[in-house]
Amino acid sequence: MPILDLLIGKPLAASDERAERIGPVAGIGVFGLDALSSAAYGPEAALTLLIPLGIAGIHYSVPISAAIIVLLTIVYFSYRQTIGAYPGGGGSYTVARENLGPNAGLLAGVALMIDYVLVVAVGISAGVGALVSAAPSLQPHTLALCLGILVIITIINLRGVREAGLIIMLPTYLFVGCLVVAILIGLAKTLLEGGHPVPVIAPPKMGAATEAVGAWILLKAFASGCTAMTGVEAVSNGVKAFREPSDENARRTLTTVIALLIVLLAGIAWLVNIYHIGATDPGQPGYQSIISMLVTAILGRGIFYYITIGSILLVLALSANTAFADFPRLCRVIALDRYLPLAFSLRGRRLVYSEGIYVLAALSGVLLVIFGGVTDRLIPLFAVGAFLAFTLSQAGMVFHWRRIGGPGAVRSMAVNGLGAFVTAITVLVVLVAKFTEGAWITVMLIPAILVGMVMVRRHYDRVVIATASPSPLELKDFRPAIVVVPMQRWSIVAKKAVRFALTISPEVIGLQIGSEDTPDLRPDWEQYVEKPVMEVGLPTPKLVVINSPYRYVLMPIVDYVLELHKKDPTRQIAVVIPELVERHWYYYFLHNQRAAALKALLYVKGNQQIAVVNVPWYLDF
Amino acid sequence: MPILDLLIGKPLAASDERAERIGPVAGIGVFGLDALSSAAYGPEAALTLLIPLGIAGIHYSVPISAAIIVLLTIVYFSYRQTIGAYPGGGGSYTVARENLGPNAGLLAGVALMIDYVLVVAVGISAGVGALVSAAPSLQPHTLALCLGILVIITIINLRGVREAGLIIMLPTYLFVGCLVVAILIGLAKTLLEGGHPVPVIAPPKMGAATEAVGAWILLKAFASGCTAMTGVEAVSNGVKAFREPSDENARRTLTTVIALLIVLLAGIAWLVNIYHIGATDPGQPGYQSIISMLVTAILGRGIFYYITIGSILLVLALSANTAFADFPRLCRVIALDRYLPLAFSLRGRRLVYSEGIYVLAALSGVLLVIFGGVTDRLIPLFAVGAFLAFTLSQAGMVFHWRRIGGPGAVRSMAVNGLGAFVTAITVLVVLVAKFTEGAWITVMLIPAILVGMVMVRRHYDRVVIATASPSPLELKDFRPAIVVVPMQRWSIVAKKAVRFALTISPEVIGLQIGSEDTPDLRPDWEQYVEKPVMEVGLPTPKLVVINSPYRYVLMPIVDYVLELHKKDPTRQIAVVIPELVERHWYYYFLHNQRAAALKALLYVKGNQQIAVVNVPWYLDF
Repeated sequence: MPILDLLIGKPLAASDERAERIGPVAGIGVFGLDALSSAAYGPEAALTLLIPLGIAGIHYSVPISAAIIVLLTIVYFSYRQTIGAYPGGGGSYTVARENLGPNAGLLAGVALMIDYVLVVAVGISAGVGALVSAAPSLQPHTLALCLGILVIITIINLRGVREAGLIIMLPTYLFVGCLVVAILIGLAKTLLEGGHPVPVIAPPKMGAATEAVGAWILLKAFASGCTAMTGVEAVSNGVKAFREPSDENARRTLTTVIALLIVLLAGIAWLVNIYHIGATDPGQPGYQSIISMLVTAILGRGIFYYITIGSILLVLALSANTAFADFPRLCRVIALDRYLPLAFSLRGRRLVYSEGIYVLAALSGVLLVIFGGVTDRLIPLFAVGAFLAFTLSQAGMVFHWRRIGGPGAVRSMAVNGLGAFVTAITVLVVLVAKFTEGAWITVMLIPAILVGMVMVRRHYDRVVIATASPSPLELKDFRPAIVVVPMQRWSIVAKKAVRFALTISPEVIGLQIGSEDTPDLRPDWEQYVEKPVMEVGLPTPKLVVINSPYRYVLMPIVDYVLELHKKDPTRQIAVVIPELVERHWYYYFLHNQRAAALKALLYVKGNQQIAVVNVPWYLDF
Repeated sequence: MPILDLLIGKPLAASDERAERIGPVAGIGVFGLDALSSAAYGPEAALTLLIPLGIAGIHYSVPISAAIIVLLTIVYFSYRQTIGAYPGGGGSYTVARENLGPNAGLLAGVALMIDYVLVVAVGISAGVGALVSAAPSLQPHTLALCLGILVIITIINLRGVREAGLIIMLPTYLFVGCLVVAILIGLAKTLLEGGHPVPVIAPPKMGAATEAVGAWILLKAFASGCTAMTGVEAVSNGVKAFREPSDENARRTLTTVIALLIVLLAGIAWLVNIYHIGATDPGQPGYQSIISMLVTAILGRGIFYYITIGSILLVLALSANTAFADFPRLCRVIALDRYLPLAFSLRGRRLVYSEGIYVLAALSGVLLVIFGGVTDRLIPLFAVGAFLAFTLSQAGMVFHWRRIGGPGAVRSMAVNGLGAFVTAITVLVVLVAKFTEGAWITVMLIPAILVGMVMVRRHYDRVVIATASPSPLELKDFRPAIVVVPMQRWSIVAKKAVRFALTISPEVIGLQIGSEDTPDLRPDWEQYVEKPVMEVGLPTPKLVVINSPYRYVLMPIVDYVLELHKKDPTRQIAVVIPELVERHWYYYFLHNQRAAALKALLYVKGNQQIAVVNVPWYLDF
């Protein structure tokens, strides 16, 4: 069997996937995961930029978070309308393509693809950041931990996961529950202790201010903080998955998710201010995440702290996991429109789109290695793709309402228009504020990928034209092929191949590549092939033995076939490769490669006249 | 073309490799590289263990290095004899197998394989350690740098390297030259300044002693320091490569290499003592390698310092590179004896043994990630394999002399026997001293790999027995196969496939998997296939169209073929797959996968009766 069963499981039958419909309670877990988990890195991303302001910087967390919450509210109303308009699921790619044309759709698709890669990289790195906060001795192993988690998630997804509601719901609720409890206790302590609560364990002292407050630094902090909004579009993509009335249930879910996210963002912003918690230098020893410091300050390092950190790690790893479910599906849709290689549309043996999974794992792995697994370094790349997709999707909705018309269309256009406007402004703010720190990478990548996609499409169109053949079969010079059967000794496998060769042509050549320790095939050939063939009166197949001094087998076969071709260039040649097929994955590496390597060599060196026939023999053990 | 030409180059013709013969001057560079580069990490490995002893520990560097130099001298005399006895190259695997039997040979082979993996991991990590010493700001990126270098070396080796003498010689001589100059100046300063030279830049202060001196800690330091001896066997492996008189030239090379290594080891040990240079904590910020501190203390941080560090990085990366040349060749030899999968004996399109390169890169990559790219954590795994191979090779030489007999045999036996004895003792010392720190990993791996190899061999033997067939072809029920040609539209590619199908059987079925956007194939089929076939009087091929709602193509084809098989289980079925072959690597990802995926699926779901025929069509652009 051709791929590792042990790791990725036995092949599955292609029965249709059954969709289990869910209600808002499960929906908050499944579709709220991405949005809610952003609270674990968004506020921290903003505060990290305020480090140079010292203690003074912390105070600005409140206005910055307020601005983000206003933005979030506008986007909320905008996506509420998408849910009603696209009951079949309104992903940015779909909405933009249907309403703004294929190019806008492709742009949204590219933005989303980049976004998914960053969801994986940031999700994992922020999760490891939480872990390192709890266990500082692991700090030097940040990158190794990130890569380890990436490998595990990749393998799980190659096996295929059904989105098991409960497994995702529990950590989401645990995460939100822990943070809400910590925030409430923090607020209660603040009230009881007259606005100046004493931390259970004091957070690390902030360094002195090295910079004065200025509009530029606040803009940058805002731009980084916007990453807290990533993932809010998930509910509107998944309307189909909700129980009837699905739009009503989806809307209720969206409302709850956004409300919870606002509570988290507001609570964190307020409390870091009260407790004087500033960000620590990311990627350096002594790093501790904001939430880790906050929970430690409010409740100390008891069991509650470790449960909270555990839930953060889990929720962030799971948010990476959702990208592994969505990225390959997006690639498939684009590949079916022939803008990506067809391979992305082929399901692997576990009914997952393996190519998409490999590509996502490789790209996010590269990002993690380049940026050392440090969230803060990845953040500047993040928001551009997400907010570009927001903008295109909501701009698409404006055109949708214009097309639909009817009462309320103007109001709907206004709501989505406002959403598109503020997110477009945010894209610009993020681009300007973060350009030199990494946003330029996204800016370069988007057009490069777009051009690549258009070139892929053009190539496929060109192949269709080049291979078009509105002409009948030519049946002149209709001779059977010369059939070459390479074999090293007489065996069941060779016997079956020769038998098959005899059914397809009267001209069969057995080919042995000999070296000092190869058994002599000639006596077997005479007794087991020539004799029975002559008895039934078929033309006698010939045996050719070629010596190869260094025990190289494949190249002499290829050379012989090319020689045959040179003698009669118009004649078809079929190379019949006897192939051992194993029933167990652990034999994969023991066989098969030689047949595959021979085929590859024949294709590299070969030409139109040379066909390859694989005759399998299945091992029973 | 099936692999990335851009990265690993166009396929090469299988002309024989020409061997350029070399003299001692080139030999010191090429074969001395491994041994000499060990001086960059061996002394440091010993000193790192002496950190807990504080300043007192540094004094022990002299006796420890003296012990290692004595060991090195014994091993030198032992290997001198191997050169004479094995003019064709006396690798440990060869010597042990010929003289001690196949099991001992296999054991030596496994020890060497582990050794090569560690040469790569330690070479790269120590090189990066030197780099980080010169540029401390890179310290947090240690692992990423290691992995980057590993990827570069892997790609270079997949392209194939001729061992370009000059490229290897120059860095080796530069490295040795720089270190010898630094040592000489250091000694001169010591003499001129009455034994207490003032460092140009003072080395970091040693921490206070936290442990008392004891035999155990000295033993551990000795065991770690022994890694300085790895690589000394390279000359005796490569006797064949020397100009005539090759054994004389090889011996002269070995003598020079060992003498230089002794100078380096003695010089470093003496001078760290004089300059009070102790190891710094590896993997932590502020880490600096011993050689970096030494050169800084003697000559400051001028241009000479940076040339030295550069030559260390280069020499260690090249020593990793030699493992990439040797590991795949060792795997090939073992694979030809059928103890490793046959794939290891197949040369890839660049005439390198690609599988061996992949495996080596993957294993050393895993080691680097697990141990965070920190040399000190890798050292305990290192010496076991190297010294085990030394022991087996020299023990083999003892039996060689006994077999050969003649005058001087007893003396030769004594020399090799002493070598075998002291290296065996060293293996035990290393095992005991380093067991808990990582040597246990090697101890567990060796038998595990051995068992795996024996199982591989047993499987191959079993396959030979299971497929043996001393019986003639059965030619009863000799019907031509049913031929199925899947196609989506009428094209040149499809036309060629149908034509080939008609030559191999009178019973041909065209198969289209339709969905809403597939063109209707029926009119083309009637006009371009049925009509011309009827005109020449051949049996008419049939067209079958199957609808697939979700645009899935492969599984319906497989299902149809299995259906056909069920109707007539004894009938052969050939699936002819029209396949587009590209002339350029960059089209690889655009085509080919569907044909490969279909073949894989047919093999997974299929059975003895189903053969696969690939009919290639070459794209001209």
